[in-house]
Amino acid sequence: MQTPLKIAVVGSGLVGSLLAIYLRKAGHTVHVFDRSPDIRTIQFSGRSINLAMSTRGWKAVDAVGIGQAIRDIAIPMDKRAIHVSDTLKFQPYGKEGESIYSISRGTLNRKMIDLAEAAGAEFFFEQRIWDVTLATATLHIGETERGEWKDLQYDMIFGADGAFSRIRHRMQRQSMFNYSQEFLNTGYKELNIPANPDGTHKLDKNSFHIWPRGEYMLIALPNLDGSFTCTLFMPFEGENSFASLPDIKSVEDFFAKNFPDSIDVIPKLAEDFFKNPTSTLVTMKCYPWTYEDKIALIGDACHAIVPFYGQGMNAGFEDITVLAEFMEKFGDDWLSVFQHYQDSRKPNADAIAELSWRNFMEMSSSVADEKFLLRKKIEKRFSERHPDKWLPLYSRVTFSDRPYSEALALGDRQKEIMDEIMTTPGIDSKWDSDEIENKTLSLLD
Amino acid sequence: MQTPLKIAVVGSGLVGSLLAIYLRKAGHTVHVFDRSPDIRTIQFSGRSINLAMSTRGWKAVDAVGIGQAIRDIAIPMDKRAIHVSDTLKFQPYGKEGESIYSISRGTLNRKMIDLAEAAGAEFFFEQRIWDVTLATATLHIGETERGEWKDLQYDMIFGADGAFSRIRHRMQRQSMFNYSQEFLNTGYKELNIPANPDGTHKLDKNSFHIWPRGEYMLIALPNLDGSFTCTLFMPFEGENSFASLPDIKSVEDFFAKNFPDSIDVIPKLAEDFFKNPTSTLVTMKCYPWTYEDKIALIGDACHAIVPFYGQGMNAGFEDITVLAEFMEKFGDDWLSVFQHYQDSRKPNADAIAELSWRNFMEMSSSVADEKFLLRKKIEKRFSERHPDKWLPLYSRVTFSDRPYSEALALGDRQKEIMDEIMTTPGIDSKWDSDEIENKTLSLLD
Repeated sequence: MQTPLKIAVVGSGLVGSLLAIYLRKAGHTVHVFDRSPDIRTIQFSGRSINLAMSTRGWKAVDAVGIGQAIRDIAIPMDKRAIHVSDTLKFQPYGKEGESIYSISRGTLNRKMIDLAEAAGAEFFFEQRIWDVTLATATLHIGETERGEWKDLQYDMIFGADGAFSRIRHRMQRQSMFNYSQEFLNTGYKELNIPANPDGTHKLDKNSFHIWPRGEYMLIALPNLDGSFTCTLFMPFEGENSFASLPDIKSVEDFFAKNFPDSIDVIPKLAEDFFKNPTSTLVTMKCYPWTYEDKIALIGDACHAIVPFYGQGMNAGFEDITVLAEFMEKFGDDWLSVFQHYQDSRKPNADAIAELSWRNFMEMSSSVADEKFLLRKKIEKRFSERHPDKWLPLYSRVTFSDRPYSEALALGDRQKEIMDEIMTTPGIDSKWDSDEIENKTLSLLD
Repeated sequence: MQTPLKIAVVGSGLVGSLLAIYLRKAGHTVHVFDRSPDIRTIQFSGRSINLAMSTRGWKAVDAVGIGQAIRDIAIPMDKRAIHVSDTLKFQPYGKEGESIYSISRGTLNRKMIDLAEAAGAEFFFEQRIWDVTLATATLHIGETERGEWKDLQYDMIFGADGAFSRIRHRMQRQSMFNYSQEFLNTGYKELNIPANPDGTHKLDKNSFHIWPRGEYMLIALPNLDGSFTCTLFMPFEGENSFASLPDIKSVEDFFAKNFPDSIDVIPKLAEDFFKNPTSTLVTMKCYPWTYEDKIALIGDACHAIVPFYGQGMNAGFEDITVLAEFMEKFGDDWLSVFQHYQDSRKPNADAIAELSWRNFMEMSSSVADEKFLLRKKIEKRFSERHPDKWLPLYSRVTFSDRPYSEALALGDRQKEIMDEIMTTPGIDSKWDSDEIENKTLSLLD
């Protein structure tokens, strides 16, 4: 057991709330601060992408006994539903029984704060933290950045305050702090497919719906109330871009032309399109994540990634799993807890950032490419015949808790082998032959 | 001609001072701000690396008629003097008559401020700028970050305030601002070789002296007063590192063992070693560099690089050359001036950052490698026999004003060819044969 400390968690999002539960279970006093109002009291902004909880996420919530409470608000999706022009193709995510789970961010966040309060964490909303004194773990809070501040000192502070973390902002101004933020030229916008009058879903409920169109795409994830949260990903500028859709007519024409089967199910298309903001997508990396035994960053505050692998929340929750393992191992030696936490997580955070970015590139450029589809077919055939030898990368990331860095290395190796396979003369006709299967086997050795 | 504007330049370093001269020549009112005291009134801190002015730098100063004033304080170096154990090897930098020029940073900066004042720029020292309002080009200046500020509004502000720019700091908080800072695990420390009693230099005056030792190295560049400014580059941690030299004895033993011929010429070794700070090395990249027609970053403020190609100042001065070209071309259309300036410079800033980093890696890892030395010999032989076909990368960067991005592409191509050449069986014995020369020629086609 650890000696009880007085700990501040900055950020009442998913990672901050779950971390608060873990810290309470370890016996600490926990104060959670957020600059926003209590999400339980307000309408959630129209800028969210539904979450896809997978193995790493479930592991983290199950370990503190809140898994069932979250399963109650989650919808399993066992397949992609790919909307290509007028046809619909289903593509299972994994083996029989393997699903990812759609959860509305707002619903989950409200539930997590309830659970953290029940565990004894205290929440302080609309508290604007402008700065932190790292050496003394002191928060500086006030109405405005230039106005009067009050100072609150803790034994330790966790920065769970997201990609634009104020806690990290102070750490960035230390020497030897490595940092990068890179925005995609693609943004996103939330849209909505409402429920049928009888409360049922207008599209298959247990699917992750996707309308892949190369540079842009539409996705839809189911909600409990029968609706779907849709997200349109599209470049900011260019031929098919947010800039190219300045008015109601252009939006309606664009959807009619490119997503014809969405027209009937998104009734408030133009209204939502112009009401909801166009949000940006950023990859943020930094190091170190901790300052002595006083400050630690966690979740998006130290590794914000693009959402194209559905792993942002899962990676943040896994931070907590790993942190808790080292709390268990090193007890009151928080210096060692923090050092091992950041050393262990940093390469995995970099790996899932890379994998997520590659998925974006793949979706943007390859999805309609014949050679790409052939590769996927060859991989799938081989994987089905030799499941022990070829676990698809997606499964490794999504349905296992092996380190992301292993998945990245595995993916690189599989790519090398497939590059070689694809150079085989006549591959188009003999892709499903014994010859190709045997060549793959020999390349794997 | 442009309509005269009231322009603030933040930073009175080399780039800020030269930019002030250019803006004065274009008819603008120019106020230069710096948080430090006037460098002309103080001892310069012991943390500088001497500058190596080359073609791009000279072009920028010659264009405003101050080249001669700077040549007067510069010492040509036409070769490297490589101190390997007890022998000394000389390696010319370029063709006959080509030199780079050693200038003390302090001496040059004082001269540049004098010249800028003579051109009519006004300097305001010890003015701490804490923030900037981008949309109105307003500087916020005060004693402390949290204290009272005065606001100064300009038509336009240039941020020439270095790698830790306050102007950029505000831009970083804009959405869609890409940014990275990455520190090397290697730091540096200034040391000094004083003049002989008669004012002559203790080592060859017209050489860039270098003691390459793999992970660490010592360099010495001549000053006008007969001294040399030395810089020790070394990892912070590890076997041969700053951390491994905690006391006078360990420093003296280390130099006696690894730089034996430096002992006699660095009399105050231990004193300087512990008096002078150990400085960090950072590569910083960002984009965009400008905000509307109000704000522009320039020099290290938008592209800080590691010093291993001797191009930091030269790249900053070239920013000014290019900016001035677009001022000439677009006149009062500052939006176009800024857009073309950043579009033109960004890929070149990225290229010299990459080249500088590669030089660090090359010096750290390859300098004692036989294969590496053989490559260099083959390249040199070919370049001498076919100067029209193979301009060494160093010359392309240092003795030309062709874009850095071209040099990087050329270097990549040359590397590919040399990789191929080095796979030739028996290359060790026939490296200077006609066969290798002809193979290189055919690979070039």
